[in-house]
Amino acid sequence: MTELGDRVLAGERRALARAITLVESQRSDHRQQATALLEHVASKGRQALRIGLSGTPGVGKSTFIESFGMMLTAQGLRVAVLAVDPSSTRSGGSILGDKTRMDRLSRDPNAFIRPSPSQTHLGGVARRSREAVALCEGAGFDVVLVETVGVGQSETVVAEMSDLFLLLLAPAGGDELQGVKRGIMEMADVILVNKADGDLKPAAMRTCSDYAGALRLLRKRPQDPKGFPKAMMVSAIEENGLTEAWAEMQALVDWRKETGHWDARRAAQAEYWFHEDVRQGVLAQLQKGEVRQQMVRLGTLVADGVVTPSAAAREMLEQHLHR
Amino acid sequence: MTELGDRVLAGERRALARAITLVESQRSDHRQQATALLEHVASKGRQALRIGLSGTPGVGKSTFIESFGMMLTAQGLRVAVLAVDPSSTRSGGSILGDKTRMDRLSRDPNAFIRPSPSQTHLGGVARRSREAVALCEGAGFDVVLVETVGVGQSETVVAEMSDLFLLLLAPAGGDELQGVKRGIMEMADVILVNKADGDLKPAAMRTCSDYAGALRLLRKRPQDPKGFPKAMMVSAIEENGLTEAWAEMQALVDWRKETGHWDARRAAQAEYWFHEDVRQGVLAQLQKGEVRQQMVRLGTLVADGVVTPSAAAREMLEQHLHR
Repeated sequence: MTELGDRVLAGERRALARAITLVESQRSDHRQQATALLEHVASKGRQALRIGLSGTPGVGKSTFIESFGMMLTAQGLRVAVLAVDPSSTRSGGSILGDKTRMDRLSRDPNAFIRPSPSQTHLGGVARRSREAVALCEGAGFDVVLVETVGVGQSETVVAEMSDLFLLLLAPAGGDELQGVKRGIMEMADVILVNKADGDLKPAAMRTCSDYAGALRLLRKRPQDPKGFPKAMMVSAIEENGLTEAWAEMQALVDWRKETGHWDARRAAQAEYWFHEDVRQGVLAQLQKGEVRQQMVRLGTLVADGVVTPSAAAREMLEQHLHR
Repeated sequence: MTELGDRVLAGERRALARAITLVESQRSDHRQQATALLEHVASKGRQALRIGLSGTPGVGKSTFIESFGMMLTAQGLRVAVLAVDPSSTRSGGSILGDKTRMDRLSRDPNAFIRPSPSQTHLGGVARRSREAVALCEGAGFDVVLVETVGVGQSETVVAEMSDLFLLLLAPAGGDELQGVKRGIMEMADVILVNKADGDLKPAAMRTCSDYAGALRLLRKRPQDPKGFPKAMMVSAIEENGLTEAWAEMQALVDWRKETGHWDARRAAQAEYWFHEDVRQGVLAQLQKGEVRQQMVRLGTLVADGVVTPSAAAREMLEQHLHR
């Protein structure tokens, strides 16, 4: 894997694509190679700015990624775009479709777009996406955008592999306010209200002010300087507000680097993923063969009130795990 | 355990206290007895209304529990109060201190107050509290209030053992708005702004209206009828708004029972706790002896960037778990 690793480190796009395919593979010999490859690529210690991005379908996520990404590459920065999408059926709003719609960005030599591996559970997608991010960092990208469509816990997973977390929203009309999944505001460093253009501009201003108010109601986090997290307006289609948003992100990054929050978060995330990988490996035992069948059978009895959760758990642990 | 179980089912307070002590014990012979006891007590299928309550110190939680509890017992209802507090050092605002401060309620023959077991990790507190709730249900209590001080993930745990979740807040002054931990609003069925009395009443109205607005920004949940989750004002000290709040809770409960959401939630929670108990049992392997030492050692290397998370996890799983 040293040769492939060297080619990734040299920034070869095809090598990077192959390397990501390798970490996505479920075959155990591939897994072994992937671990060695990651070790090799990590040895350089390169860091990108990893930006997590969440937003429900319809908020203009692909347009935003294209405009924002083009603005960054125009500044000479190299940008990778990855997606974390644990849903098995990929909708039209997914990044796979986006690759065609992110027409300009996908043809930009300084950009690299990679769809999420599909049809697998979140734990697996999470690890593979996090490893793909590490490969992009090794390949010398300056910014790695990790997009998620906000299915289940995918935002948490993306936040754990990001230095910054953006929440993209669309303007809401009057009383009929859009539903932000609870708990997502928890992770946002910057909320961007998109489509602040034309007829939607007044609604965008109102939405932005509503969310700025909601953010003030939340507890202050130690990793935030004064004024953060913040809500801002952008128009991806008119390319307005993007440089302002980027300036705010850079200010936040600078502050976190100066105060040590950046390094602390990186270290904590690495340790988190180590523990998470071990936990996933251990819990995977429960998904196999006979053990799995027994879990399903007992789970039904518990839900029906036939057995208490405690008694059923005791039975499982005694039968299958105290070896 | 049949005799103790029968005495719990007969509603004997001392038997209930002893039974809770038994489920709190970490001794493995006690655990076996506790499992049998829970099985016996569950056989009657009794259900209380389990109300989770969260609020940071200073919001008047003990005063609220006392006033609200007294209102319920005055209606002839039997009320149990439990606490989930995973912090090892118990502060003055804890329920242990509250037992003295909840002076009237603790002397009420229709009330039962039990402090949280202290100095243990959340997973352990969670299971034991959930089992204490089941014992109180078996003992024929009509309402079981489960209080948490909001440390870490304790709200999630309390929500998983509750039919309703209340968030208690104090009025905020002007711009200096109080910090609600992100993600807690996610779980609230009713937000109660306490201290809506005297000089604080205008601030309480403003806070209530702010949170009502914030709740409208969140996504609608299937288990909520129109108008829920909602924010209301109460004054625990003047005993105002309590019957109104109770009426809203009952309306919500009735709706959920009619629509099947009550039973579905109960079944899902039971299955959740079964899976959780098994997962905890499996993960407990990582906390033992040599395995634990190895986790700490490798975790430090990962945080320092010496080893990648993937490689360290692979080493752990190969050495200790593929037996």
